[in-house]
Amino acid sequence: MSALENALGYARAHQTHFLDDLCDLLAIPSVSTLPQHAGDIDRTAHWLAARLSAIGLHGVALLPTAGYPVVYGEWLGAGTHAPTLLVYGHYDVQPVDPLAEWRTPPFQPTVAGDKLYCRGASDDKGQAFAVLAAAESYLAGGALPVNLKVMLEGEEETSSPHMPAFVRAERERLAADAVLICDGAIHDPQTPLLAYGVRGGVHLEMEVRGPASDLHSGVYGGAVDNPFNVLVRILAGLQDANSRRILVPGFYDRVRPLDAEERALMARSPMNDAAVLRLTSAPALAGEQGFSTAERASTRPTFDIHGLPGGFTGAGKKTVIPARALAKFSFRLVPDQDPQEIAGLVTAAIRALAPPTVHVDVRVLGSARPAVIDYRRPAMAAADEAYARGFGARPLYVREGGSIPIVADFQDVLGATVVMMGLGLHEDNIHAPNESMHLPNFYRGIDTVIHYFDRLAAAGA
Amino acid sequence: MSALENALGYARAHQTHFLDDLCDLLAIPSVSTLPQHAGDIDRTAHWLAARLSAIGLHGVALLPTAGYPVVYGEWLGAGTHAPTLLVYGHYDVQPVDPLAEWRTPPFQPTVAGDKLYCRGASDDKGQAFAVLAAAESYLAGGALPVNLKVMLEGEEETSSPHMPAFVRAERERLAADAVLICDGAIHDPQTPLLAYGVRGGVHLEMEVRGPASDLHSGVYGGAVDNPFNVLVRILAGLQDANSRRILVPGFYDRVRPLDAEERALMARSPMNDAAVLRLTSAPALAGEQGFSTAERASTRPTFDIHGLPGGFTGAGKKTVIPARALAKFSFRLVPDQDPQEIAGLVTAAIRALAPPTVHVDVRVLGSARPAVIDYRRPAMAAADEAYARGFGARPLYVREGGSIPIVADFQDVLGATVVMMGLGLHEDNIHAPNESMHLPNFYRGIDTVIHYFDRLAAAGA
Repeated sequence: MSALENALGYARAHQTHFLDDLCDLLAIPSVSTLPQHAGDIDRTAHWLAARLSAIGLHGVALLPTAGYPVVYGEWLGAGTHAPTLLVYGHYDVQPVDPLAEWRTPPFQPTVAGDKLYCRGASDDKGQAFAVLAAAESYLAGGALPVNLKVMLEGEEETSSPHMPAFVRAERERLAADAVLICDGAIHDPQTPLLAYGVRGGVHLEMEVRGPASDLHSGVYGGAVDNPFNVLVRILAGLQDANSRRILVPGFYDRVRPLDAEERALMARSPMNDAAVLRLTSAPALAGEQGFSTAERASTRPTFDIHGLPGGFTGAGKKTVIPARALAKFSFRLVPDQDPQEIAGLVTAAIRALAPPTVHVDVRVLGSARPAVIDYRRPAMAAADEAYARGFGARPLYVREGGSIPIVADFQDVLGATVVMMGLGLHEDNIHAPNESMHLPNFYRGIDTVIHYFDRLAAAGA
Repeated sequence: MSALENALGYARAHQTHFLDDLCDLLAIPSVSTLPQHAGDIDRTAHWLAARLSAIGLHGVALLPTAGYPVVYGEWLGAGTHAPTLLVYGHYDVQPVDPLAEWRTPPFQPTVAGDKLYCRGASDDKGQAFAVLAAAESYLAGGALPVNLKVMLEGEEETSSPHMPAFVRAERERLAADAVLICDGAIHDPQTPLLAYGVRGGVHLEMEVRGPASDLHSGVYGGAVDNPFNVLVRILAGLQDANSRRILVPGFYDRVRPLDAEERALMARSPMNDAAVLRLTSAPALAGEQGFSTAERASTRPTFDIHGLPGGFTGAGKKTVIPARALAKFSFRLVPDQDPQEIAGLVTAAIRALAPPTVHVDVRVLGSARPAVIDYRRPAMAAADEAYARGFGARPLYVREGGSIPIVADFQDVLGATVVMMGLGLHEDNIHAPNESMHLPNFYRGIDTVIHYFDRLAAAGA
């Protein structure tokens, strides 16, 4: 039997074992955005480091950053003639609220039917684990066909604030021909997707302050501006109600137009109207005029409000003019928009909309640069072939609507081809209650990554 | 000594005793809007019933309503030739959030300088207690110069939902020539105010629902409408950004215009620009074009947003498209606007603004009718005289910006002159953290109500 066949056989024989170990990893609530989970982040990093050593990687270490550490390990036994693949994933997860909408405890991994429910089951512990299982399956036979480097970060869900500096500082350790990221979703198990782009984004918080303390709306209503009334006017003023265009001067200046070839790829995207309606149960779709649903969800910038804290939000009612109102919102960005520049433009637009009756502050909570990859590169062709063998179907080519902040850094600093092979499904409810991993996809995903090691070796460095 | 002098002497001798007893009353957290305080409401009602009996009222009872009971007592010994005065107050209080902004525990009465801090210290336990202390001071000498009826309700802060039915059902028991309500604020201790009108209001909750569950804003942003983006557009569409006019068709149709005499009264109101800026520390004032600050705050309708629950409101950030967004807001109304009609008009306006991409529901959380009283009546002249004697200054005549829902019912059902003598100060922080009662005002208020009993008796029925 070939090394490839041995690896595939090992993976098949160890499915139950892989599932059990993944459940151990998922049970640790590594929520990076909430400081009270710092200890859980630490436990998760150590769990993964032990795992990398156990499957046969060398140089395993927790590499420090200014925030949570990167778990690193490598196997460089394929020789200098073989290509070097850097695998990137993240071990932190999203918060779980609204908790009441979970049908099972969010950090108690639960198998029901062909799904495994847990926060992080898909994004990204489940997918990152599949890549480690593929490496284990090869290394159980003694060798991988490529040189492998693994880096798993703990701050992806807080926009990877320290990765730009880390990738630059560790550029020699991380040097690779290709980067494999399994942190995405495919439309259905019969339709794998190769993502050749990601949106960036900038996450902002606006604070509107009026009176020094909360006021009775009977006594002062009509005399002073209500910070929430001002806040909704400002937010509404940032987007046209009909065209859904973002009304920030200069916002679209650097947006790269889609060429005919890309629009043809988009027309084949599974993110069509029927699919999105089915997946979301939204009463009707909406978005920027002049673009298809698939184009709007991945190749166009957006504006989304995530929450408007402040004031009275309890049961019943309270006739108060709140002293301050907050807005948490973000803009998804596309090449070649620059998050810092956009933050400045949005802040200027907000200042122009704000009346002199309030004080307005805008804070940047996080940002990510957008990226597009040339989908004709050999490392991409190897992924196309691996999907064909692992899933039995050729992939569609799409751009991700979400952000993987590090993609732009890998491109720019390492000069590597970044290959994004999603092993999750759109129905996985990532970032939402009842996140799940489709288990047949998890096992197919392990096989597909095994094939990717093989096909990348065949394609050469 | 006259009975009046005896009563004033008793009040002066018992100031410490009154303060101590008021503190006992304030310590019970009778928040009517929060169901978990039902037991506290009950304790407060029993405390007050015992008090009414102790000071010499007869027929003391907790009169049932469909909600919390009315505490009632009467003293009818002045004879049929004397006028009958119904005193109205409320023993429920507002919620205390934001709790973190209180400098002392909200239900631990705390004297600091010349102020007593506690939720309810001014609104309305402190003021209602002052009226009871005045009655006690007269009754300690054996008799009041007027027939007195006292009713204290427990649902004023939830818009008195059961008072319209109660006043109608109990119209014979409550029959009176005048109604005295001490539940307001005067500008400063040197400037008493007689309120001859109250605003009404309607409190609404809007729910905007989009996708069936929370979605990742990367995957679906740009493809489906975000309920919060829709919500801010709808809310912003209800009011003109410049004129601050409410953009609800028909909203102003029944608003009674101000005549020249009222505008002259308003021009003397202490709610002028300098005072409101000083009291609120707002960066600048704002409101409906074409009206003075005093007019806007009491004789014109308003629109205030109180809170926008839903979505992600924690620390950090979460890139979510929330499945639903809520808005809590209210309109203050003026004669002759009808709250039910306005609720219908606003709901229709919201439906007209809502896109087909979401489901929108509007619920009425509470309402109150506005009222205006003829300020030339004898029962008002007696109040003018009482203020002059108690505070050493003639009152200004104003309309209250807040709502006292029962005023319209007293006018319509009892045919009584409703006299609103505020004993609080605008700086009392009612409905806000650090609510207080200015103690010199509290004691002057007791004197003033004693004088009012005397002057009303002199004015006759």
